[in-house]
Amino acid sequence: MADLLSRPLIEIAGALRERRATAQDLAEQAIARHDRFGERLHAYLLWTPEQARAVAKAADAAFAAAAIAGPLQGLPISIKDLFAADGLPCFAGSSRRLPAEPWERDGPLVATLRRQLGVIMGKTHMVEFAFGGTGLNSHHGAPYNPWDASTHRSPGGSSSGAGVSLLEGSALLAFGSDTAGSVRIPACMTGTVGLKVTLGRWSTEGVVPLSHSFDTPGLLARSVADVAYGFAALDPALGDAEHFLAKCGTLALDGVRIAVDDGFFWNDCDPGTAETVQEAIDVLARQGAVLRTTTTPEAAEAYAVFLEGGVSAIELRSFLDQELPDWLDQIDPIMAQAVRGAEALGARDYLARLGRLRTLARRAGTRFDEIDVIATPTLCITPPLLSEIGSPDAYIAVNRRIVRNTVAVNYLGLCGITLPVGLDRVGMPVGLQFIAPAWAEEKLLAIALAAERVLGISAERLGTPPLLAP
Amino acid sequence: MADLLSRPLIEIAGALRERRATAQDLAEQAIARHDRFGERLHAYLLWTPEQARAVAKAADAAFAAAAIAGPLQGLPISIKDLFAADGLPCFAGSSRRLPAEPWERDGPLVATLRRQLGVIMGKTHMVEFAFGGTGLNSHHGAPYNPWDASTHRSPGGSSSGAGVSLLEGSALLAFGSDTAGSVRIPACMTGTVGLKVTLGRWSTEGVVPLSHSFDTPGLLARSVADVAYGFAALDPALGDAEHFLAKCGTLALDGVRIAVDDGFFWNDCDPGTAETVQEAIDVLARQGAVLRTTTTPEAAEAYAVFLEGGVSAIELRSFLDQELPDWLDQIDPIMAQAVRGAEALGARDYLARLGRLRTLARRAGTRFDEIDVIATPTLCITPPLLSEIGSPDAYIAVNRRIVRNTVAVNYLGLCGITLPVGLDRVGMPVGLQFIAPAWAEEKLLAIALAAERVLGISAERLGTPPLLAP
Repeated sequence: MADLLSRPLIEIAGALRERRATAQDLAEQAIARHDRFGERLHAYLLWTPEQARAVAKAADAAFAAAAIAGPLQGLPISIKDLFAADGLPCFAGSSRRLPAEPWERDGPLVATLRRQLGVIMGKTHMVEFAFGGTGLNSHHGAPYNPWDASTHRSPGGSSSGAGVSLLEGSALLAFGSDTAGSVRIPACMTGTVGLKVTLGRWSTEGVVPLSHSFDTPGLLARSVADVAYGFAALDPALGDAEHFLAKCGTLALDGVRIAVDDGFFWNDCDPGTAETVQEAIDVLARQGAVLRTTTTPEAAEAYAVFLEGGVSAIELRSFLDQELPDWLDQIDPIMAQAVRGAEALGARDYLARLGRLRTLARRAGTRFDEIDVIATPTLCITPPLLSEIGSPDAYIAVNRRIVRNTVAVNYLGLCGITLPVGLDRVGMPVGLQFIAPAWAEEKLLAIALAAERVLGISAERLGTPPLLAP
Repeated sequence: MADLLSRPLIEIAGALRERRATAQDLAEQAIARHDRFGERLHAYLLWTPEQARAVAKAADAAFAAAAIAGPLQGLPISIKDLFAADGLPCFAGSSRRLPAEPWERDGPLVATLRRQLGVIMGKTHMVEFAFGGTGLNSHHGAPYNPWDASTHRSPGGSSSGAGVSLLEGSALLAFGSDTAGSVRIPACMTGTVGLKVTLGRWSTEGVVPLSHSFDTPGLLARSVADVAYGFAALDPALGDAEHFLAKCGTLALDGVRIAVDDGFFWNDCDPGTAETVQEAIDVLARQGAVLRTTTTPEAAEAYAVFLEGGVSAIELRSFLDQELPDWLDQIDPIMAQAVRGAEALGARDYLARLGRLRTLARRAGTRFDEIDVIATPTLCITPPLLSEIGSPDAYIAVNRRIVRNTVAVNYLGLCGITLPVGLDRVGMPVGLQFIAPAWAEEKLLAIALAAERVLGISAERLGTPPLLAP
C-alpha cells in the first residue's frame, strides 16, 4: 500500500492485521523518510534501522500466523532518550552514557511496547535531564522545527525530538515525558498532539527522573485519534481498549461543557496565539459545545511556585547526588547553575512548596464540578529562535514563558492534551490545551477527539511544514 | 455469658452473631472494667460510654434482624487520639483541640469500623503528635503500665494508651499508628500484640501525620489471633477474610524458616530481654521451625539515618507550618527543640536521607529470598521509669534505645508484628518481633499465630499484670 504511513494508526493496524500491508514495508517507508530528512531535522540521538527491520520482520511473521501480540504490533515508534531500554544506550540528553544498570533495561512502558511487537525506530533527542522546555541541548544540538525552513527555531522540549520524529514520518507514535509541559510543549510547537497523563497513572520506572514528585510519561502522535489509539494500547488502568476507542469515536460535542479561564492563561500571548485558540473554541461552540467562564487562581499560584524555583532543580540535584555523583560538572552551564542554586533550599521550604501544591490541587479539583474540561492556549509564546536564547538571562526568561500554561496541569495533579488548531503570525503552530481532572483521561480524549473531528487533523488544518514540502 | 470479655474475638463475635450474648452486655462489661481501673490506668483522653452504649444497642438490633454489617459488629474498640473521627475532639496528644475540619471527620479506617457497627469506647492517650516512644506526655500525663504496680513505668508510645486499654479490658482491639515503632513499642511494653502493616497498605487519610513518608496505621490486641481477626475485618487488600482466617489458623511451624540476625538486634539488650526471646525461638525450633542465621546490615544503616535526625522532625515541622501554624510554641519543650532543630536541614540532605533509605529498602527486600521471617527482640530495653526520663538528655538517650529494633522495619519498607513471650528481670513484658517483606502481612500473621499456639497467649504465658490482680 502506497502512502500507508499517512493513514490513521487504527487503519494501518487494520491493514497489517489483515495482511493488506506488511510491517516491513511500513518500516522501510519510515526509514526512507528518515534517510531523506533525518540529517536536516536531527530528531534522533540514536537511530536503529536494523533493529527496527528485525522487529518488523518478527511482527509480520506473527501476523502471518494470525498471532496478535497487541495493538502496537508492527507500528514504528520513537522513544525519548529518557526511557531506559534493553540494549540501547541512554544519555538522557547528557554528554555521557548512563550506567547500563539500570538505564539499559526496559521499564514497564517500554516493556509493554516490546511485548506488543511495536517497532522502536530509535531514541529521540531531549533537553539534558529534561530540565527545560526550549529544546536547547549544548551537547547534542537541538532538533529543527520543520515549520520554519529558514531559521533554527525551537522544536519545543524537553521531548525535543519527539514531535519532529512524527513530522519526519519515521515514527507514528512518540514516547515522551512531561514534568512541567515536556510533552505538550514540543507537541504544540511542532503542530502535533501531546497527552500528559495523571501523575501515577503510568509508571515512571525505567524513566530517568527529573522530578520524582511530578514526572509523568506521555505520548505524542499526529492526531488525537492516534494518541487515543496509543493510550488504549498502553494504559494499564483501561479495562477494554476496543470499547474505549469505539466510545471515544462517537462522542458528540453537544452539551460538552468547555470552560475558559478569565485571565491567567490568556494574558500576554504572542501575536496570533490566543486569537487562533479562541477561534477554534468558537468553532466548537457553534458545533454544540457549551462554553462556560471559570476562574482558576490555583493555576497562577502553581506557576508562582515554579517561578520561586519549584522542586525540579533540587530533586534533579538529589538524583545526581545518589546515582550520578560526578555528573554535575559536565552538564550545561545554564542548567548547572540552576541545579547548584537549589542547594541552598531548606527542607522546610521544599516541603512547604509541595504542601502548597497539594492544597492548591485539592482546590483545583473542585473547579471541575460543573464543567468537563478547561480550554487554554497550550503556549503563550511562539517557538523562539534558538539564536535568541543563547544567554542565560534570555534562556531563563523564555523558558519561564514556555511553561507558563502547562506547568499548572502538572502541579495541580490534573491531566491534559494539546491539539494543533492553526498557525500564529509567524506561521508557527498554535495548540489548544484541554485540561481535565485527575484520572479523567478517557473523557479528555473523547472530548479532544470530538474537537478534532470538527477542526480537522493537523495535516488538514495546518498543511505541510515548509521544511518538508515536496 | 459471664467473662465473655476474656474470650478470643472470633468466639465473642460468634456468640454475638448467634445471640448467645449481646453487644450491650459486652459494652457494660467493658465499661465496668473502666469504672474499676480507669482512674488508675489513665488510658483514655476521651471516654465515651454513652456513645458506646448507643452503638452496642444498634449492633444488637442488627443482630436481632440477622443483619451483619461486618466482623467488628458489637466489639469494643479504642482508637488512638491521632485518628480523626466524626463528633470526637482530636488533640493528637497536644494541649489544644485540632480544627474540627478535617480532624473530626472519619477517615477510611474509622469509617470501616463504624460501617461494621464496631463500638468505639473512646480515644486513647498518645505522645504529642506521636513524636516519641516513651509514652511521656507533659500535657495529659502518661498512662500507667499495669505490669508495675508500684512505680509509674512507661506503657510505651507513641500509642501509649492503646495497649493499656486492652489490659484494662475496656477494649478488645486498639487502633494505633506506627512511624518508628509506635504500635509495636506499646504492645511490647504492655505484653500485648502489635501489628505494623506495610507503608501504603492502610490509608493514612484522617490520621494526624507525624511523618507522611513513613506513617502507617496499626492494630493492637491481646493475642495474635485477635489481631488477625481485626486485620481480616479492616484490610482492604484482603480478598476473602474467612478463608484467610481459616488458612492462618492451620499453618504449622514445620519448615517455617525463621532467621536470626547475627548482631544488630541482639547487642546491648537489657537483662532478660534477649535471653527470653532466644528461649522462645528455641521452643519454636523444637516444634519444627527451621532456624537460619542472617545478616541485615541495612537495619543498622537505617538506624543510623534515624540517629542523624531521620525525617520525622522536619516532616512534623512542615505539617505544623501548613496546618497548625501557631502550635509549635505550645508543644512539649523537649520535642519543640527537636522540631526546631530540624529547621536547619537542607532539602538536599533531606532527599539524600530518603534516597538512602530507598536504596537500603531494595537491598533489605532481597534478604527474604530464602527465609520467611526475621525474628528479633522487639525492644532492647525494659520499660523505663518515667521519673528517669525527665531531663532532655535522658529522654533522648532512652528514646533512641526504645526505637532501635523497630524503626528499621519502617525505614526499610517492611511489615512486622510483636508478640509477648515472657518477662524480663524486673518483671516487665518481653516481646518477640517477626519481620516480613512488604505486603507479606498474611504470611506474617499465619507464622505469628503458629508461634502463639506453641507459646501460649499473653494471659497464659505472662499471667495477670500486678496492677490488675484481683
